[in-house]
Amino acid sequence: MKTGILAWMHEGNVTIPSLLFSEYRNLKLSEYDLAIVLNILAYAQKGNNFPTPEELSSRMTISINECTDLLRKMIQRGYIEIIDEYSPEGIRFEKYSLDPLWEKLVDQFMLNQKNEKELGRKSEES
Amino acid sequence: MKTGILAWMHEGNVTIPSLLFSEYRNLKLSEYDLAIVLNILAYAQKGNNFPTPEELSSRMTISINECTDLLRKMIQRGYIEIIDEYSPEGIRFEKYSLDPLWEKLVDQFMLNQKNEKELGRKSEES
Amino acid sequence: MKTGILAWMHEGNVTIPSLLFSEYRNLKLSEYDLAIVLNILAYAQKGNNFPTPEELSSRMTISINECTDLLRKMIQRGYIEIIDEYSPEGIRFEKYSLDPLWEKLVDQFMLNQKNEKELGRKSEES
Amino acid sequence: MKTGILAWMHEGNVTIPSLLFSEYRNLKLSEYDLAIVLNILAYAQKGNNFPTPEELSSRMTISINECTDLLRKMIQRGYIEIIDEYSPEGIRFEKYSLDPLWEKLVDQFMLNQKNEKELGRKSEES
Repeated sequence: MKTGILAWMHEGNVTIPSLLFSEYRNLKLSEYDLAIVLNILAYAQKGNNFPTPEELSSRMTISINECTDLLRKMIQRGYIEIIDEYSPEGIRFEKYSLDPLWEKLVDQFMLNQKNEKELGRKSEES
Repeated sequence: MKTGILAWMHEGNVTIPSLLFSEYRNLKLSEYDLAIVLNILAYAQKGNNFPTPEELSSRMTISINECTDLLRKMIQRGYIEIIDEYSPEGIRFEKYSLDPLWEKLVDQFMLNQKNEKELGRKSEES
Repeated sequence: MKTGILAWMHEGNVTIPSLLFSEYRNLKLSEYDLAIVLNILAYAQKGNNFPTPEELSSRMTISINECTDLLRKMIQRGYIEIIDEYSPEGIRFEKYSLDPLWEKLVDQFMLNQKNEKELGRKSEES
Repeated sequence: MKTGILAWMHEGNVTIPSLLFSEYRNLKLSEYDLAIVLNILAYAQKGNNFPTPEELSSRMTISINECTDLLRKMIQRGYIEIIDEYSPEGIRFEKYSLDPLWEKLVDQFMLNQKNEKELGRKSEES
């Protein structure tokens, strides 16, 4: 049993802002886009920062081609970025950055906050 | 800025076993099922343990009817359970339990472990 | 093994901003204060929002009296608050709120950001 | 505000099994040991897998010497291990592994489960 629990533990967890789940629709992302983003996070947590469409689609219900297509569109639409990093030994490698997505999520959050405040003000006036 | 960061913080995080993302396909769940499960977790973390199909679908790209349908199927297929709980004051309320899903995930994890071990044994023998 | 993994899973995780670990000293908290805060979070995650000094000290290396004392001081110094909440049935109950601590942590974070910016400006000028 | 929230987000979270907080005392660890372990986790999450006693003690209320001492004792007593890893370019580096601690935590968890079961059996018999 001990080995089992330790192996389970090693698989690890991913911690995600709840807002991603409540707002992906408002960010014009589909459930497929969401699953790609979550798997990019899951791979990164395991040390793989640039999973291939093959790797991603192997966990999903869509084909490699569909996955490539959705990835490409999320890059074009500014949700995901491919960035260059350098290892301590100076070797260049590529990785996915979800920073643009988090920016959009923060924008959406601030918009929601503003709308709620205005709603609050209106209901006070009426 | 301070208010903004505190408000952001209050939205909270959801911590999910990475295996859910790598194995939902093997568990015969779709990306829509996954998004429903994640939103059940997100609502629960906010204190709502029995979100309605309306609440769930309002965050998703699918209609209330489709959401009801997917929920019903996940209950029938034994991924989600509706259980009764009692408040300290003895008032009964219903909540979703994802325990059956976690059981299936652990089963799948143990199956993977077993397959890897056998693969290891075979490659040693050959 | 399955039962073991599921039981382990049910114990759950606590997700904490890394900054709490890097900044508690700067916030004038001791390692004992930190352990109290973490156990308040761990109890809350299990549904107990108002653990007694007995419950807290039973997990710590300090006595009930010392625990009561540290709790009282954190309340006096404005890190922890006791707030009233009402159940859906209108019954009042008390709970610990760590919101004042998170506010102080955000203040400290903003101070660090400001100092880094100034440091950056100075090193550019020189 | 947006920059502030993004910077806050980048600081990240550490996700820790609740059992570490409820059981560290039973594992014969002090609140200082706990804070060292938590900061090793926090540094690792930022990519620093081998923080020095200077780095660790700079966040704690104890001196570098005391920190070195506590670290050394946790290594001797089999809670923390120093392991060698190799970068993709074949360069060796050292890192702390907390695997021995997680093993002890799982042992303690299994002991608790066993005790609870026996307690349950006894109370049924009586």
